[in-house]
Amino acid sequence: MAKEIERKFLVKDSWQPQSAGIKIAQGYLSTVPERTVRVRIKGDKGYLTIKGKNVGVSRAEYEYEIPRQDAEEMLQLAEQPILVKTRYLEQQGEFTWEVDVFAGENQGLVVAEIELPAEDAEFSRPAWLGQEVSGDVRYYNANLIKCPFSLWKK
Amino acid sequence: MAKEIERKFLVKDSWQPQSAGIKIAQGYLSTVPERTVRVRIKGDKGYLTIKGKNVGVSRAEYEYEIPRQDAEEMLQLAEQPILVKTRYLEQQGEFTWEVDVFAGENQGLVVAEIELPAEDAEFSRPAWLGQEVSGDVRYYNANLIKCPFSLWKK
Repeated sequence: MAKEIERKFLVKDSWQPQSAGIKIAQGYLSTVPERTVRVRIKGDKGYLTIKGKNVGVSRAEYEYEIPRQDAEEMLQLAEQPILVKTRYLEQQGEFTWEVDVFAGENQGLVVAEIELPAEDAEFSRPAWLGQEVSGDVRYYNANLIKCPFSLWKK
Repeated sequence: MAKEIERKFLVKDSWQPQSAGIKIAQGYLSTVPERTVRVRIKGDKGYLTIKGKNVGVSRAEYEYEIPRQDAEEMLQLAEQPILVKTRYLEQQGEFTWEVDVFAGENQGLVVAEIELPAEDAEFSRPAWLGQEVSGDVRYYNANLIKCPFSLWKK
């Protein structure tokens, strides 16, 4: 089984992108936590990704590349609205942070994710790293469709 | 877009398989009619299939072959119980009927499906063909999980 160990953090205003971002559009065919099914267009490629339920910061994950045209059509089948964001990669030591800058109804939200080889793996924290939100279900991408950041009580 | 035009019928008791069947195990990651997501093991192969909502007897369909091992693991993530059936192919003129003999909680149910090139395509009806159930949602495989044949009022 493919297994994904991820930690997610908010990003401070001091962060500035170091490189060009890549545009991502994604939608969900299932947002049930036990079996989320995601359709994603990332640059010129399409992907279908199945994830199991989180157990701590781990979850089963299966990803397949699919024709971009299929992905575009399947985004029409997905729960609406779809998510749109720009992803920036930030190399820090041996790990790469994915910094996602959301658009549309989630404008204003910026999160950073790191994929780790083990649940207790050590990693250095960049100066722009804010509060950890790994366990906070509101920040799950699937939930940002149902209840977008712009609607949250500040 | 791949588009599937299918018609589904019950099968009379007079039907006898003309060839060996192939065992199919399948489960659903989404049973929402607008976006069903099916995991299937058919013989030694695994498949992931996404279907849109029925419009008449047509619906969008996207199918990808995936590693059998992935499919086995994803059947654990699927809504339970999974469906188990044996599929027999029956050649009739230019078309091939798929006759599915269900097991487990759907034991006793036998249905035949034909895929057609157009919604109004002509086809010959074998003597063992029973009542058409194309539009009857109870016979959708996704619904046979939630409400199996063995529980139906006879």
